[in-house]
Amino acid sequence: MPEIISTSTRRKVITLGEVMMRLSCPGQGRFTQADSFDVIYAGSEANIAAALAGWNIPAAHITAFPDHDLGTAATNYLRQFGVDTQYIRYQPGRLGIYFLESGASIRSPKIIYDRFNSCFANVNPTQFDWSEIFRDATWFHYSGITPAISQAAADVCLEAVKMARKKGVTVSGDINYRRNLWQYGKAVREIMPELIKHTDVIVAGITDFDNCLGIADETFESTCEKVVRQYKDIRKIFTSIRKTVSASHNMFGAMLWNGKKTIEAKTYDLIPIVDRVGTGDAFMAGYIFGAINQFDDQRALEFATAAGALKHTIEGDVTTCSVEEIVALMEGENVGKLLR
Amino acid sequence: MPEIISTSTRRKVITLGEVMMRLSCPGQGRFTQADSFDVIYAGSEANIAAALAGWNIPAAHITAFPDHDLGTAATNYLRQFGVDTQYIRYQPGRLGIYFLESGASIRSPKIIYDRFNSCFANVNPTQFDWSEIFRDATWFHYSGITPAISQAAADVCLEAVKMARKKGVTVSGDINYRRNLWQYGKAVREIMPELIKHTDVIVAGITDFDNCLGIADETFESTCEKVVRQYKDIRKIFTSIRKTVSASHNMFGAMLWNGKKTIEAKTYDLIPIVDRVGTGDAFMAGYIFGAINQFDDQRALEFATAAGALKHTIEGDVTTCSVEEIVALMEGENVGKLLR
Amino acid sequence: MPEIISTSTRRKVITLGEVMMRLSCPGQGRFTQADSFDVIYAGSEANIAAALAGWNIPAAHITAFPDHDLGTAATNYLRQFGVDTQYIRYQPGRLGIYFLESGASIRSPKIIYDRFNSCFANVNPTQFDWSEIFRDATWFHYSGITPAISQAAADVCLEAVKMARKKGVTVSGDINYRRNLWQYGKAVREIMPELIKHTDVIVAGITDFDNCLGIADETFESTCEKVVRQYKDIRKIFTSIRKTVSASHNMFGAMLWNGKKTIEAKTYDLIPIVDRVGTGDAFMAGYIFGAINQFDDQRALEFATAAGALKHTIEGDVTTCSVEEIVALMEGENVGKLLR
Amino acid sequence: MPEIISTSTRRKVITLGEVMMRLSCPGQGRFTQADSFDVIYAGSEANIAAALAGWNIPAAHITAFPDHDLGTAATNYLRQFGVDTQYIRYQPGRLGIYFLESGASIRSPKIIYDRFNSCFANVNPTQFDWSEIFRDATWFHYSGITPAISQAAADVCLEAVKMARKKGVTVSGDINYRRNLWQYGKAVREIMPELIKHTDVIVAGITDFDNCLGIADETFESTCEKVVRQYKDIRKIFTSIRKTVSASHNMFGAMLWNGKKTIEAKTYDLIPIVDRVGTGDAFMAGYIFGAINQFDDQRALEFATAAGALKHTIEGDVTTCSVEEIVALMEGENVGKLLR
Amino acid sequence: MPEIISTSTRRKVITLGEVMMRLSCPGQGRFTQADSFDVIYAGSEANIAAALAGWNIPAAHITAFPDHDLGTAATNYLRQFGVDTQYIRYQPGRLGIYFLESGASIRSPKIIYDRFNSCFANVNPTQFDWSEIFRDATWFHYSGITPAISQAAADVCLEAVKMARKKGVTVSGDINYRRNLWQYGKAVREIMPELIKHTDVIVAGITDFDNCLGIADETFESTCEKVVRQYKDIRKIFTSIRKTVSASHNMFGAMLWNGKKTIEAKTYDLIPIVDRVGTGDAFMAGYIFGAINQFDDQRALEFATAAGALKHTIEGDVTTCSVEEIVALMEGENVGKLLR
Amino acid sequence: MPEIISTSTRRKVITLGEVMMRLSCPGQGRFTQADSFDVIYAGSEANIAAALAGWNIPAAHITAFPDHDLGTAATNYLRQFGVDTQYIRYQPGRLGIYFLESGASIRSPKIIYDRFNSCFANVNPTQFDWSEIFRDATWFHYSGITPAISQAAADVCLEAVKMARKKGVTVSGDINYRRNLWQYGKAVREIMPELIKHTDVIVAGITDFDNCLGIADETFESTCEKVVRQYKDIRKIFTSIRKTVSASHNMFGAMLWNGKKTIEAKTYDLIPIVDRVGTGDAFMAGYIFGAINQFDDQRALEFATAAGALKHTIEGDVTTCSVEEIVALMEGENVGKLLR
Repeated sequence: MPEIISTSTRRKVITLGEVMMRLSCPGQGRFTQADSFDVIYAGSEANIAAALAGWNIPAAHITAFPDHDLGTAATNYLRQFGVDTQYIRYQPGRLGIYFLESGASIRSPKIIYDRFNSCFANVNPTQFDWSEIFRDATWFHYSGITPAISQAAADVCLEAVKMARKKGVTVSGDINYRRNLWQYGKAVREIMPELIKHTDVIVAGITDFDNCLGIADETFESTCEKVVRQYKDIRKIFTSIRKTVSASHNMFGAMLWNGKKTIEAKTYDLIPIVDRVGTGDAFMAGYIFGAINQFDDQRALEFATAAGALKHTIEGDVTTCSVEEIVALMEGENVGKLLR
Repeated sequence: MPEIISTSTRRKVITLGEVMMRLSCPGQGRFTQADSFDVIYAGSEANIAAALAGWNIPAAHITAFPDHDLGTAATNYLRQFGVDTQYIRYQPGRLGIYFLESGASIRSPKIIYDRFNSCFANVNPTQFDWSEIFRDATWFHYSGITPAISQAAADVCLEAVKMARKKGVTVSGDINYRRNLWQYGKAVREIMPELIKHTDVIVAGITDFDNCLGIADETFESTCEKVVRQYKDIRKIFTSIRKTVSASHNMFGAMLWNGKKTIEAKTYDLIPIVDRVGTGDAFMAGYIFGAINQFDDQRALEFATAAGALKHTIEGDVTTCSVEEIVALMEGENVGKLLR
Repeated sequence: MPEIISTSTRRKVITLGEVMMRLSCPGQGRFTQADSFDVIYAGSEANIAAALAGWNIPAAHITAFPDHDLGTAATNYLRQFGVDTQYIRYQPGRLGIYFLESGASIRSPKIIYDRFNSCFANVNPTQFDWSEIFRDATWFHYSGITPAISQAAADVCLEAVKMARKKGVTVSGDINYRRNLWQYGKAVREIMPELIKHTDVIVAGITDFDNCLGIADETFESTCEKVVRQYKDIRKIFTSIRKTVSASHNMFGAMLWNGKKTIEAKTYDLIPIVDRVGTGDAFMAGYIFGAINQFDDQRALEFATAAGALKHTIEGDVTTCSVEEIVALMEGENVGKLLR
Repeated sequence: MPEIISTSTRRKVITLGEVMMRLSCPGQGRFTQADSFDVIYAGSEANIAAALAGWNIPAAHITAFPDHDLGTAATNYLRQFGVDTQYIRYQPGRLGIYFLESGASIRSPKIIYDRFNSCFANVNPTQFDWSEIFRDATWFHYSGITPAISQAAADVCLEAVKMARKKGVTVSGDINYRRNLWQYGKAVREIMPELIKHTDVIVAGITDFDNCLGIADETFESTCEKVVRQYKDIRKIFTSIRKTVSASHNMFGAMLWNGKKTIEAKTYDLIPIVDRVGTGDAFMAGYIFGAINQFDDQRALEFATAAGALKHTIEGDVTTCSVEEIVALMEGENVGKLLR
Repeated sequence: MPEIISTSTRRKVITLGEVMMRLSCPGQGRFTQADSFDVIYAGSEANIAAALAGWNIPAAHITAFPDHDLGTAATNYLRQFGVDTQYIRYQPGRLGIYFLESGASIRSPKIIYDRFNSCFANVNPTQFDWSEIFRDATWFHYSGITPAISQAAADVCLEAVKMARKKGVTVSGDINYRRNLWQYGKAVREIMPELIKHTDVIVAGITDFDNCLGIADETFESTCEKVVRQYKDIRKIFTSIRKTVSASHNMFGAMLWNGKKTIEAKTYDLIPIVDRVGTGDAFMAGYIFGAINQFDDQRALEFATAAGALKHTIEGDVTTCSVEEIVALMEGENVGKLLR
Repeated sequence: MPEIISTSTRRKVITLGEVMMRLSCPGQGRFTQADSFDVIYAGSEANIAAALAGWNIPAAHITAFPDHDLGTAATNYLRQFGVDTQYIRYQPGRLGIYFLESGASIRSPKIIYDRFNSCFANVNPTQFDWSEIFRDATWFHYSGITPAISQAAADVCLEAVKMARKKGVTVSGDINYRRNLWQYGKAVREIMPELIKHTDVIVAGITDFDNCLGIADETFESTCEKVVRQYKDIRKIFTSIRKTVSASHNMFGAMLWNGKKTIEAKTYDLIPIVDRVGTGDAFMAGYIFGAINQFDDQRALEFATAAGALKHTIEGDVTTCSVEEIVALMEGENVGKLLR
C-alpha cells in the first residue's frame, strides 16, 4: 500500500480512545457465580496500539485516566506491551468498566458496560497537543466508539482526525456502530460523516455504513462503491466475516475493497475459542502492520485475518502473538504442532 | 397443562430430598491429582427448587442437615438461589458427600459417593409438618433416590406424596433408578410402585420402568401405555435422550408421552460440556416451570430440553440460566453470539 | 433495654442503604499489582442485616439494584445470609463499586469509591411501601452515608425514619460522617439534624456530632449530654474506640452513654487483622441483637464489642460468627484454642 | 537413650493408625465461606511416619483404605514423603474425613470430624501379618485415637503392641485422650490400661493419665512417679506445653520425665502460626528420631520441641523440615534470616 | 511376547534418564502472560517408570538430582507414583528445566528448554552400581535423549545397556531424535548405533532411523526390515502415529513391526486435548506393561495406544489412568459416560 | 546533595545488572510443597530502576536477555513500571533463575540460585554504546553482584563506571558482597577496588569493606574514614541496619556517613513482613530519589529508610509505593489507618 504510507522512515502509530477496566468471570463462570473477576485494562484502540508495539511498531495511545491508583494500574498495563503512554492525561473521575462473561458452547458471551461518566467521556479537548503528538507519526487510528461516548470525546476525535490529515498522517477508522452508546444527545449521522470524510482506511460492513451514513447496497462491493462516490478520500474498506457456530466455535475470515475490487482472505476454523474479545482489534492491528510494511492488499488482509484468528486463542483483549507466529499461520506451517 | 395445575394463584413448589456436599476436582484434574476440591451443596431435588426459585417460582426444599457449620453452609448455599429453607431440620449427624471428577474427551467423568449414614438417611419422619408445608403449594417433586436411601427416607417420601395428593398438589417423580443405592434391605419393587401410584408426572425411560415396576415394552410409547394401564393417575411421562460422543461432547434431546401420543423436542449438540451433573434436574425444573405457566406439552418439553441443554454449559449442579436465556435458545436466537 | 423494644414478639429488623460491589485485591496485593479482584456485595446497613439474619433475627434490607445480572448477583449474595430481599427494587442503572486494598503492617489500607450515579443514588422514593415494610418490624437502622449520596436517597431515608417512628419501630442511626460524600449540593447540617431528631439510638463520636450538628464538648459523655438536650428522643449513644498500631494490629473497644452514665466494654488486641472493613457494622449489629434480646446496657455493649472485634478476623464485609462464638469471646473462653 | 534402642542396625519405625482426608478452608476462611477445600491425607501416626521418612529413618505406616481412587490418592500422598505403604490394606468402605477451619487472632481454629464408619474403623484384625511387619523394626508407635475408634481398631492396636514387645521393638504411645471418640461401647479405662502396660515411651499430661488410668497428682513429675509404680515398663514420659495467646500466637515448650527427674526444653514464641495441626506429631517424631540416634534425654527433648515448634510454620499435617533446619533452630542459628 | 520376557517372576523395570522441572503456563496462557507456573518434575523415562508403578509393576528410576530442596522435591514427586527412588544420586549442580505453553486451537504448544549443564549432564558414570540395580529386573528402558545430553550421559547409558544385556534383561529404547540436543561434540551417528545394537525393542519411525542410523526406506515395514538386517537383535519396532488437526484436536494411532509383519492399532479422536506432553511415554509404558504381562502383539499395541490416547486427557507428564480404565477404552466400554 | 547532582535538568538514571526470573512458592509454602511458583523478573539494579521510574524519574536498565519468549516476558515485566528497556540486548542463552521460599515466624526464608551461565554472564561487552546510554543521564548505579558473575560482566561494569565518570554522571555502588558468587576465577579484591575507586556513593557495612577492600575498623564511622583515606572520590557511605526477630518480624533502620559525620534514620518495626526481598533496593532507590531531588542528607536517608521499610509490606522485588506514601510514613501520618 505504498500510496498510503508516504515515508517508510516514520513508523509511529497514534491511537485514541477510552481504556476501560475489564472485569471478567474466571473460566466459564457466570456473573452470578463469580467470587472473583480477572482484571485487565482494555479498549479497542489501545488494544491495537499494544499489538503494534509488540510487533516493534512504535505506538502511542491517547486517553484520559483517573488520577488515582487505578489510573496508574491501567497505564502500567499498557506499558508492559511497550505502548508509549507519555501523552495520557490524568484527571479526577472514574475509569469506565466492562464486565465480561465468556460463555461456552450454546451459551452466549455477555458484556455489561458501566462506562458512562468516565474520565474519558469528560475529557478536556484542549489538553492534547496534537501537533506534538503527530510529530513522528505515520498513522492515526480511531473508532466509532469514541464519538459515541460524549460530545467532548467526539470533539477530541474530530480534532485529532483533522490534525492528522493536515500532518500527512494516514487515518483509519473502525466504524463499529453500537446502538447502546450514543446517549449524549447527538445522533450518529450528525457526527460520523464528518469523521469518515477525513478517513483513508475504513473498517465497516454494509450495516455500519447504513447506520452511520445511510448508505447501503446489496453487496459489500457495491456498498463500498456507493460510499466512495460521496467520501472520496477513502482508499480501502475492509471487514472481518464471522460465522458463529457456538460461543466455543467460530469461523473467521475477511474481505477488502481496494477501490477497484474485493479480495478475500483465508477463513479459519476456531475451536475452542479462548477469548474472542479484541479479535477485531488484532485484525485491524494486523492490517496497519501490513500497510506500514508495504504489504500488498492480499498479503495485508491475510496477515490481518491470521492475526485476528490467532487472537481467539489468547486470553485478554490484546494479541500477544509475534509476527513470526502470524506468518506461520498464514502460510499453514506447523499449525497446532508442538514447537520445541 | 391446565388440567394439572388447578389454580394459577398457588405457585409454590415443594421438593424433598437429600442435599450432599459436592467435592469436585478443579478443572479436568483427577482424584489422585487434586490438592483442592471445589465445594458446593447439591441434590437432585434441591437443584430443581433452586432453578425454579431463580425463575421466580417460590420453591421450598425439605431436607435434614447436620446441626454444625456445614449444615449452615449448605443452607446458605441454597438460600442464595432464593430457595425457601425454613422447613429444613437440623440434627446431629453427618452430611452426605459426593466426589466428582469431570473427565475430558475419551476419559469418563466419575462420581464416588460417600452418602451412607447421613442426617437425611436418619431423618425423623415426624419432624415435618406436611400439612403446613403444602399450605400454599401447587406442586411436589420427589425422586427415586430418596426411597433408595433408607427406610426412614422412604417413609418420609411416601407420607409427603400422600399428603400432597390429599391437598390437591400435583406430584412429580423422577424415577432415577440407581442400583448402588437400595442397600437398606428393601427391594426397589417393594417401594416404588406405591409412590408411583400417587404420582401425576413421571420422568422415566423404559429401563427405569422395568427396574421399578417390572413393566417394559419395545418402545417408549408402548411402555408408557402399559404403565398407565396399571398406574392410572399418571398423566405425563417424559425422559431426556442423551447421546454420549465423549465426556466433552453430548447430544441432548427429550420425548414426552402425554397420554395420547409421544412428542419430541429439538436435539442440542453440546461441545464442550462444562458440567453435565444436574442437567436432568434443570430439564425437570424446566418442565415444572412450563406446567405451572400452563405451556402446552410441546412448549413445556422444548423449554425443559433447552433448560437441560444450557445447563451443560454451567458449572455446579444448579442452572443459573434465566427464563429469557432459555427461551432465546429454544427459539434459536443469537446462539453463541456476544451479547452487549 | 426493655424501654426501647416494646414487644418481644416483633423481631424483624429493617435496614436501608446502598449495596456496592466490593472489589478487593487478593491477599496483601496492591491495586497496581492486581490481576484479579475478589468480589462481594456490601454496604454498611446490609452488612448489619446479614449479621442479624445469621443470628436468627429476621432482617430485610431495602435498596435498589440494576435490572441486570449484577443486580441478581448482589441479591443472591445477600440471600445466602438469610437476608429478606423481597423489598429490593430493580431499575436501569449501575451498581456502585468500591475498590479495596487491604494494606499490611505499616502500609495503610486504601479504598477507592466509584459510587456516584448508582441506582441507589437515583432511587425513586415512591417505590417503597414503608407502611407494608414496617408491618412486623421492631427496629429500623440507617446510616449517615445514605443522606450523603443524593437528594433522592436523603428523601427516602427521612421518609423511612418518619414512618418507623409512626409505627412504633425503634430507630437507630450510625452517623458515620464522610466528607468525600455530600456532593449533591446539600450540606450535612441541612440534612442530618432532622434525621437525628427522629432517632432513638445513635452511633457517633464527638467529631461526628461536631460535623453533623455543630455540637461538641470535651468528653464523649459531656458531648452526649449536650446533644440530648437538643435531641430529646435519643436514648443511647455509643461508639467504638479503635487504636491503630498498624494495618495488621488494632485495639478495639467501645463506650456507651445511656442517658445517665458512660459505660465501657472490654478492649481486644487484634493481631493479625484479616479484614477490618465492616467491623463497625458487626459492632452495630451486635448492639441491635442485644437490644432486641433485652440485654442490659453493659451486656449489649460487650456483645457488640466482641462481635466487632471478632469481625476483624473474618474476610468480607459481613461477620459470619455465631452468637455462641461471640459470647465465648465475651466470656474469655478458649480464645484461640483448637475446637474439635 | 541407648537402653531403649537395642541395636543401631535396625532403624525401621512402624506406625499404626487411621489416615483421614483433611479438607481445610483456604487461608483464614470459614466453613460457611469456603467454595473450595484444600485436601491432604493425614493422621497422627502417619504424620509421624512421614516426618521420620523425611529424616531418612525407614518408616512404614499400617492402615486400611477404601479400594477406590481416594484410597490411591491417600497412598500416593504418603508415598511422596517416602513412607513405606506396602502393608496398607484396601477394602470396600469410606475414608474418614476431617474438616479444618484455621482461625485467626482471637478466632479459634475448628475441626469437624466425619470419621465414623470408616474403612479403618471396620478394619479386619487378621489382615495384618505383624510378625512380618516387625521383622526389621526397631520402634512401634500408636496413639490413643486408634483404640477409641472401634473394637476392631482397639483389637488391632493391642495385637500390634503385644507382637512388638515380643519382637523386642520399642513401643511408644501418644495417649491423646479425646472424649468425642469412644462411642463404640467401651470406656477408655477398659482399654487403655492394657495398652499402656506394654508401652515403653508415653506422651501424656496429667489429665490424660487421669482420664485413661484414673491416676493423677499435683505435678507432672509426681503423676509420672505414681503411674510408673503401676506401669513398670514405662521408661519415659513426656509432653509438650502450649500456651495459647491467640489462634495466631502460641508458646510451645516441653518436659520429659526420664524415670529419675523432669527436664525441660526451650520454649518457642510462635507468631504467626501457619498451621498448628500436626505439631504434636512432629514433636513425637522428633523424639523418636532422637531416641533412634541415641541422643541423650535433653537433646532428644530439645530436638523434639524444635521439630514441633517449626511445624507451626508449615502448611499441612506433616513437617517438611530437615534435620539440619531443626538443629539450627535448637542451636539458635540464623533464626528467621534469609538463607541464600 | 513370551520370547522377550524370560521369567514371569522378575517384574521390575529399570528406567534411566534426566528428570527436569516442568514449568507450565496455567490454562491456555502464554509465557508472556504467566504470573505463575505450574510445577511438576518430569522426564520421558521417569514418566514411564511412574506409569508402570501405578499399574503395580515395580519400577525404579535412575537419575541424578541436585543436593538441595529441589532435588528432594523432584524425588518426592516421583515417589508419589510409587517409583523406587533408592538409586537416585544427589550432587551439587542444577536441575534441568523445561517451560511449557500448551497452545489452543490453531495456536501451537511451545517448549523452551533450559537443560544444559544440569546435574544429570554432569553425572558421574561410576556412581551407579548397575549390577546391583539390575538384580531383580526384567526390563530396562532408555531413550535417545540421554546420549544426546553429554558424553557422561551417553557413557552411563551405554554401560547400563550392556550390563542389562549381560544380565538377561530386555532392553527397550525410544530413539526420539532431537536435533536441538547433541551439542557436546559428538554426532548422533557416532553414538546411537552402538546403543541400538544392544536393544531388543525399538520405538522409532522412518525419520528416526534415517537420522540415527542412516537407514530409511519407503515404508515403515521396509525400513524396519532394512534396519534389522544390520541390527539383528531387534525384535520389535513400533511407533505412534499422530495427525495434528490443531493444538486441541489430534488423532492418535500406532503400528508395530514384529519381525514378520506390521500390525496397526485403533485410532482415537482426541478433542479437546488436556495435555499432550508425555503421551508417547504413556504409549511406551503401555507396551512394556503388555510385554511383561505376555499380551500378544496386537493386544500389547492396543493397550499401548489406548494408554497413550488417554494420556491426552490428563494434566502433567504422567498418565494416572488405571489398567481398568485403559482396557475399558480399548474395548470401547462407556467411553465418556458418567461412572457412578 | 547539590555537590553530587551537577545539573537539575538531567534526571535520567542508568542501572546495570542481571535480571533473573524469580520463582517463589505461593504464600508460606515450601519448595517441597509447591505445585506452582509465582513468577516475576527481578534483579537488584533493575528493581532500583523500576522504583525510580514509578516515582517519575526516567530510568533505563541495561542488561542482556535471551532472544526467546522469556526475554520478552522479562522485558514486558520491567516496562510496566516505566523502565526504559531500549538498551537491553537479546542473544541466545538462558535467563538466570532464583527460587524463593518466604519462610514464616521462626522458619527462615531461603533462596536457591540457578544463575550460572546466563545470557548476562555471557554478555558481550562491546554491544553497549555507553556514550549514547549516558547522554542524558545524571546517575549510574551498579552493584557488587555484577562483577561477581563473570569476567565479561565485570568488564562491562568497569567500562560503564569509567564512562559515567568521564561524562560527569554520579556513580553509586551497592557493594553487596556474596561469597557464593565469585566463581569465575577472580577474587573479589582483584576487582572491586578498581570499581570503588570510581564510585561517588557507596552502600556498604563494615564487613563489606573488609571483604572487598580489606579495610575494617571498630565502628561504621571509623571504617568509613579509613576507606575514604584510600578511596578519595567517595562522598557518601550508607547502609541499612536490620534486626531479625523472626522471618515475620524485623526492625529496619539506616545510617549514613557524609564525609563529616554519621547520621541515623528512624527505625521501623515491621510485622508481619510480606516480602523482604528487594527492600535494600527500595532503600537505595529512595536515596537516589532524594539525591536527585536535592534532599539534605538527613531527609534523603529518612526517605530511603521509609522506602525500604515500606517495601517489606509489598509482594515482589519492586516497591510500588508512591512518593506520597513514603513521605507520609516518614512523617508518621495515618500509619496503618484506612484511607478512603
